[in-house]
Amino acid sequence: MKLHTYWRSSAAYRVRIALNLKGLGADMIPVHLAKGEQRSQAYAAVSPYKLVPCLEFDDGEVLCQSLAIIEYLDETHPEPPLLPETALGRGQTRALAQAIAVDIHPLNNQRVLKYLKSDLQVTEDAKNGWYSHWVLEGFAGVEESLRRKQAPGPFLNGAAPGLFEICLVPQMYNARRFDVDLTPFPRLRAMDAACLALPAFDRATPENQPDAE
Amino acid sequence: MKLHTYWRSSAAYRVRIALNLKGLGADMIPVHLAKGEQRSQAYAAVSPYKLVPCLEFDDGEVLCQSLAIIEYLDETHPEPPLLPETALGRGQTRALAQAIAVDIHPLNNQRVLKYLKSDLQVTEDAKNGWYSHWVLEGFAGVEESLRRKQAPGPFLNGAAPGLFEICLVPQMYNARRFDVDLTPFPRLRAMDAACLALPAFDRATPENQPDAE
Repeated sequence: MKLHTYWRSSAAYRVRIALNLKGLGADMIPVHLAKGEQRSQAYAAVSPYKLVPCLEFDDGEVLCQSLAIIEYLDETHPEPPLLPETALGRGQTRALAQAIAVDIHPLNNQRVLKYLKSDLQVTEDAKNGWYSHWVLEGFAGVEESLRRKQAPGPFLNGAAPGLFEICLVPQMYNARRFDVDLTPFPRLRAMDAACLALPAFDRATPENQPDAE
Repeated sequence: MKLHTYWRSSAAYRVRIALNLKGLGADMIPVHLAKGEQRSQAYAAVSPYKLVPCLEFDDGEVLCQSLAIIEYLDETHPEPPLLPETALGRGQTRALAQAIAVDIHPLNNQRVLKYLKSDLQVTEDAKNGWYSHWVLEGFAGVEESLRRKQAPGPFLNGAAPGLFEICLVPQMYNARRFDVDLTPFPRLRAMDAACLALPAFDRATPENQPDAE
């Protein structure tokens, strides 16, 4: 199978981690977001959403949306599991992942920052303020949720990372890139550091991709 | 159980539909978003994210995030199913739901529009342009995806609505409220109309909630 990806896309980064955790290989097909390749006719034929990532199977079927792809990989390759066993545990893990993937990242990705600059003509400072605002607000909720949950560590559900950490690490990477102060989030920093020590996460980092610049 | 909700919240609207489709009852606890009640100390004690919806169980456990709540309801009350049987079908249904719940709605909800107006001081026209832009871009991808999929109708996966329709209907409602021209989306309009004819969807509409104004 092929993964349509971009080295700096947080959503593609998530899927790369999931593939690595599952021990699955995929051909990486770079789509250069900064150059607008996602809007090309060739890519629109793959993804009607004109966004990365998109998983393309050998029979031509496609599956877009990082969270949907990750759940698909977990259903078709159950080991190691990315979600805990109980329905409530699964729900609360998904909720924490979505607090990042739904409430933070969609507001801060490349196309949105571009719209703020080009269409709304906000200043560079106002754009960076917008970025920080949503990260700080979102991470505050996630950190507080982890505090209440008394997560056992080193990961949300114990000894192995899963769906939550897959969403956390790319958002932490992205936040550092935009110089957001992560001091108020000790639990997130500890989990992020524990993930980055693992080869599955390390190999998925933007700088380790063939299309990194 | 209790659902912390707000009549006009699209995310809460989704959970109301899911509860109705599953035939489940919950006490509706209104959180007045326009008055900022979600930021009160009382509500922050329920939801660390200070967002609706949030499902609160009788033992005090809470589950936030509409998509996580809906999957939880589907896992714990499997009939009628909200996702199809095959892993690929489930993935593609989740992807379509997320194309709305991740790529459109987070950009257009109340807190974001408020930030545009108050913090970035954009004009009313620019705010409405932002709203339309993300709806039109997102719906174009969803409509095209349905066209390629040749969905059987009246719903995405045949005779019964599920996770996708649960996300579609509140976004259509919201788009109409902001006067977005929905003419380019015949498949979305047809599915929306088929849903609105069902009591589970009708009872969940904002105007039919006890806290509607």
